[in-house]
Amino acid sequence: MSEPFSFRLLKTDGAARRGEIITPHGRVHTPAFMPVGTQGTVKGLTPDTVRDTGADIVLGNTYHLMLRPGAERIAALGGLHKFMNWPLPILTDSGGFQVMSLSDLRKIDERAVTFRSHLDGTMIELTPERAIEIQALLGADIAMQLDECLKLPATRDDIARAMKLSLRWAERSKRAFEICAANGHALFGIVQGGDDLSMRAESARALAAMDFHGYAIGGLAVGEPQETMLKIVAETAPMLPAERPRYLMGVGTPRDLVEAVARGIDMFDCVLPTRNGRHGMAFTRYGAINLANARHAADFRPLDPESAHPVARTYSRAYLHHLTKSNEILGAVLLSTINLAYYQTLMAGMREAIAAGQFAKFRDHTMAQWERGDLPLV
Amino acid sequence: MSEPFSFRLLKTDGAARRGEIITPHGRVHTPAFMPVGTQGTVKGLTPDTVRDTGADIVLGNTYHLMLRPGAERIAALGGLHKFMNWPLPILTDSGGFQVMSLSDLRKIDERAVTFRSHLDGTMIELTPERAIEIQALLGADIAMQLDECLKLPATRDDIARAMKLSLRWAERSKRAFEICAANGHALFGIVQGGDDLSMRAESARALAAMDFHGYAIGGLAVGEPQETMLKIVAETAPMLPAERPRYLMGVGTPRDLVEAVARGIDMFDCVLPTRNGRHGMAFTRYGAINLANARHAADFRPLDPESAHPVARTYSRAYLHHLTKSNEILGAVLLSTINLAYYQTLMAGMREAIAAGQFAKFRDHTMAQWERGDLPLV
Repeated sequence: MSEPFSFRLLKTDGAARRGEIITPHGRVHTPAFMPVGTQGTVKGLTPDTVRDTGADIVLGNTYHLMLRPGAERIAALGGLHKFMNWPLPILTDSGGFQVMSLSDLRKIDERAVTFRSHLDGTMIELTPERAIEIQALLGADIAMQLDECLKLPATRDDIARAMKLSLRWAERSKRAFEICAANGHALFGIVQGGDDLSMRAESARALAAMDFHGYAIGGLAVGEPQETMLKIVAETAPMLPAERPRYLMGVGTPRDLVEAVARGIDMFDCVLPTRNGRHGMAFTRYGAINLANARHAADFRPLDPESAHPVARTYSRAYLHHLTKSNEILGAVLLSTINLAYYQTLMAGMREAIAAGQFAKFRDHTMAQWERGDLPLV
Repeated sequence: MSEPFSFRLLKTDGAARRGEIITPHGRVHTPAFMPVGTQGTVKGLTPDTVRDTGADIVLGNTYHLMLRPGAERIAALGGLHKFMNWPLPILTDSGGFQVMSLSDLRKIDERAVTFRSHLDGTMIELTPERAIEIQALLGADIAMQLDECLKLPATRDDIARAMKLSLRWAERSKRAFEICAANGHALFGIVQGGDDLSMRAESARALAAMDFHGYAIGGLAVGEPQETMLKIVAETAPMLPAERPRYLMGVGTPRDLVEAVARGIDMFDCVLPTRNGRHGMAFTRYGAINLANARHAADFRPLDPESAHPVARTYSRAYLHHLTKSNEILGAVLLSTINLAYYQTLMAGMREAIAAGQFAKFRDHTMAQWERGDLPLV
């Protein structure tokens, strides 16, 4: 352990890539899905459970953790790994996205984004330098630059302004990182540019010239059609250095993951498997299944008898239906577990398929299974 | 497995008793604490987690399960053990207590209690025979007779009427049980009589004459002072057959458990460890600890470094405080686990102490630790 950050590209199959990231807290097999641990916990699950779903790495949210319990507090307690009892790699975002989505009052200028805390209403200023400092205090293996993330649709002028500001913040983030980050940790730049391909290209080229440890594509999955997102991914990914990992932020559905891997993405994070699990929705080989539906009430079968994870093989649909209808915490726990396990199984399947040069076949087979839908009623 | 119900009294130490109950689903070491699995789940915890806290047996609630998903539904799915994936013993209550505490409209006559479901408002009739049938459908290793449970204080007339009705229902429950219960399962009678010792005595003697597999003391922990409860337990327990297990229903705090074991009780159930866990309260060797309190915010120490359970030894007080303040599900999960583990450690300590003839010493030591209170601040 405690090797410095590195990335090895092991195999390509079309645009799809099989690789591995080394971090001070261990190895991440890519393409990788990162469960989201917003407030220092992947909601409802112990770290052991998260690990047992197959996760190599989790994501922590700078915005939430800086507000509560505070970055300095976590640092004093030994860092985020120790705080949440997760000994494996952690990537933290920069807080920029949540400032946009969670705080109602905010002001962006050259120097910083200033916003009102959604917890207690205090005004807080976040500069690119402070965002890096917070992530260093948390002890993130991989930190993200502060950027400005717009909702789409947006005007061309707004997109250009935010993209250029994000580039200047990328430079400031990098300088700050070089001063305060621990040895071997990594910083990723974030490509912005909305749904404008020429601005995406400008952003990608400028960031590549700055030489980050990895590159994210940000500002997607913010309201645009899937087609738009995939087009931007397809055009942007090849502009990024092949020998560095590529991370598509905040994405997505199982279908999004397969399509984005097909276009050269290595890393993902998304709240869908846990959020939907808390609302009675399961992701499976048979597509998405709503456990609240009365069709499951008397169904003694497990969600997926061939799942690699015991929870998906053990509990009956009738029981999961009962827990969901009864608003029992265990329903959220079991379905979050099942969903994260399915996401990890999907990623492992993609990794194997790429290694074997069979990615296109895997993708067709997986999509065909989803399209056939759930098992017929017994 | 699948041995018929039996009870062996292994050792006594004063009035305290060390024993073991054999059931068709395995062995229960007594004195025993039964975690409550109201709606077919010990709230928030997987069966593996419940087992790992040291539980030999859980309790299921007839009232909740008959309303949702329904006893016939659970029977068709293979019974409650299979439904909730708990392979060890299950005791079910008869529904009487929840009818009193949860349904706002109810009518009791000789034949049945009729009540309005708190879920959908339908009127439901529960006879002693139907309560037994439901418990047989659930597959309970130990079933309870239907009784009438009063809130205290109550008038002497009301107490006498309810106690006598409960005795007649005990006879009907026993006849129904002999017809419909599976081989080797057990039925317990329930002593009523409020806070009136002579009525408790009348109830205990009449039930003993009916020859149940075990005897519960019901109608306590319903608003009376602890002193009253312990007095009734102390007077009632010796009237029950020594060779049968004695179960004090719905009790209690750690202190209640120790005091009731000292007075000859073998079995307990209570929602406190899980309910209080969901509200940021921990039960420990140092007494009850409120994790929401700001004193824990920067405390890197675990709740109890000497706990037998890894969860109590691993997560810092600061992290448990953070999860509690953030209303994170994992806070409820971890504190419920810690509390159930503490309850089981306490029971195991009492069992060992009784076996060694050291119960009085154990009791004094345990109480002195609680009285010293929590660890001083670092």
